[in-house]
Amino acid sequence: MAVRRIGSAHIGGRPASLQGLPPRQIRYSPGGPAVGIDPNGDFEIEQMYVQYVQLQQPRARYPLLLMHGGGMSGVCYETKPDGQPGWQSFFLRAGHDVWTADAVERGRATWARSPEFFAGEPVFRSKQEAWELFRIGPPGSWRGRERQAHADTRFPLAAFDQFMKQSTPRWSSTEAATQAAYDELARLHGPFVLIAHSQGCNFAFAMALAQPEKVRAIVAIEPSGFPQVPDQALAGLRGIPHLLVWGDHFVGHPLWSQLRVALAGYRDRLRAQGVRADEWDLPALGLAGNSHMIMMDTNSDDVADRVQAWLTQQGLCAGQGAHGRPQGLVP
Amino acid sequence: MAVRRIGSAHIGGRPASLQGLPPRQIRYSPGGPAVGIDPNGDFEIEQMYVQYVQLQQPRARYPLLLMHGGGMSGVCYETKPDGQPGWQSFFLRAGHDVWTADAVERGRATWARSPEFFAGEPVFRSKQEAWELFRIGPPGSWRGRERQAHADTRFPLAAFDQFMKQSTPRWSSTEAATQAAYDELARLHGPFVLIAHSQGCNFAFAMALAQPEKVRAIVAIEPSGFPQVPDQALAGLRGIPHLLVWGDHFVGHPLWSQLRVALAGYRDRLRAQGVRADEWDLPALGLAGNSHMIMMDTNSDDVADRVQAWLTQQGLCAGQGAHGRPQGLVP
Repeated sequence: MAVRRIGSAHIGGRPASLQGLPPRQIRYSPGGPAVGIDPNGDFEIEQMYVQYVQLQQPRARYPLLLMHGGGMSGVCYETKPDGQPGWQSFFLRAGHDVWTADAVERGRATWARSPEFFAGEPVFRSKQEAWELFRIGPPGSWRGRERQAHADTRFPLAAFDQFMKQSTPRWSSTEAATQAAYDELARLHGPFVLIAHSQGCNFAFAMALAQPEKVRAIVAIEPSGFPQVPDQALAGLRGIPHLLVWGDHFVGHPLWSQLRVALAGYRDRLRAQGVRADEWDLPALGLAGNSHMIMMDTNSDDVADRVQAWLTQQGLCAGQGAHGRPQGLVP
Repeated sequence: MAVRRIGSAHIGGRPASLQGLPPRQIRYSPGGPAVGIDPNGDFEIEQMYVQYVQLQQPRARYPLLLMHGGGMSGVCYETKPDGQPGWQSFFLRAGHDVWTADAVERGRATWARSPEFFAGEPVFRSKQEAWELFRIGPPGSWRGRERQAHADTRFPLAAFDQFMKQSTPRWSSTEAATQAAYDELARLHGPFVLIAHSQGCNFAFAMALAQPEKVRAIVAIEPSGFPQVPDQALAGLRGIPHLLVWGDHFVGHPLWSQLRVALAGYRDRLRAQGVRADEWDLPALGLAGNSHMIMMDTNSDDVADRVQAWLTQQGLCAGQGAHGRPQGLVP
């Protein structure tokens, strides 16, 4: 890979101050003296982080922005938990400049004092919740070490505990701040092609609504929400092709069944306003067993190849996928 | 830059469980249904994160590991707050494979429920504390927008608030877990040449003591602590050259004056055991005005050039600095 530049930035956020909290004392390092700490003062909060890898000669027309889902950070697109290359590498090799986001409160975005700045308390996702919510195994299948996955799952099961090391706490009170930071990122560095996952899809959809000139396409991997706007607002998305991608094993997962119906409604409303909204049901395309974490599944390159072909078909990238899959295989 | 591979991993850590906490309900996304949350269950905690950029043809003999200081993450070595390239880019262009760490609890390492897993509470560094502790201005010089820096400071003052966006909370109870994760990183992926900053230097020194065969040199930028071991243990560090680097404006900063005296003691004990321990006082070398955040100061490339030359002098890297500074300028 001929790389022109690797860098990062914190985007958005705002100054904020604390007063009236009691002082304390702390020793930072062995051998260091005790230091008085005043928890009050001035801070920066609600910023996001983005890291970019820019190629010497990108073949894509616009940089790709990878947007993670809930309880995740941009790490979910890097090296997979099983040690194989992830989508960041795939799309770099396919000719895209790749920007990888850590949304507000996640990863290198860092987080702010709670509940003073981030209302409520952080939620830590347990292994059992992830196992079922990400449809690696059916509800009730978590039994610690005796966990039972879907028989044909594509999730790399031996790497599940390793995967959980990247799980991050989340607040449910920071959605507006997250959206504001993403919108600022688009304003400063767009237009982007968006690949978003789960919770990240809602931010991607809303980013396109707020600044349609800053978004060239949206690939929504298992979206978990959508903007609450009137139908006519969606007309502003004409010219921004949408692609919804769904894995396997929705039967028996009530939450995901509900979400899928809700998102089919959003898809239909997009189409009714003249927006291209494609949808892939991976099992129907011959790809069985995908979990919610499609970018980590053992066939993640197969899915990425198809996404790359779809992007090429939209005129957003010249040439073939990183693995040379010809464009005719677009489903 | 001809890059062979960009990737990342979570290293170390352990499984841990929670029981007996009360359940709650939460709505993750607009349009999504309410979900019952059980805060109990199984988790992974105390892992660290590392990201690597490997060159097609590195000129350095060993990969470089960048270790951040307290309240920071690996971001401190990436693009500087003023938008200029940081040391990650500098040392890549100088021919090193560069690994950048987020220690336990920081950045993409993520953090664990507190106080159940991380004892005590997180400390958030305020702007006024950073301004003085990082010797950007003298004690008492913070006045909000009317802050007064040292007249000759090299810190990019206009980017100070931007800098604070990367500041991360820290616990004082996670040192042992952090050391264990760093030691595991060295075991799995060493040997490394270490560039460490502030709190990170103590982890670097201890990593070398625990596995001297996994560390080839230590560049300690303004170290804030050192391992509490008997003199004879330091003999194990023979063959691992140490370099201590200090910025400007220690006068009037009692904490830093104490630390510098303490570290001079460690330096002398290293030398007494036959360990090469060089020390640079940057003002004495003609570089005035450096803050504690030397890798972000406006002359960061000047310092990096000298570090590169020192590493070359130790036989660890062939050729010149990224900016072509001849080796004769090593102080």
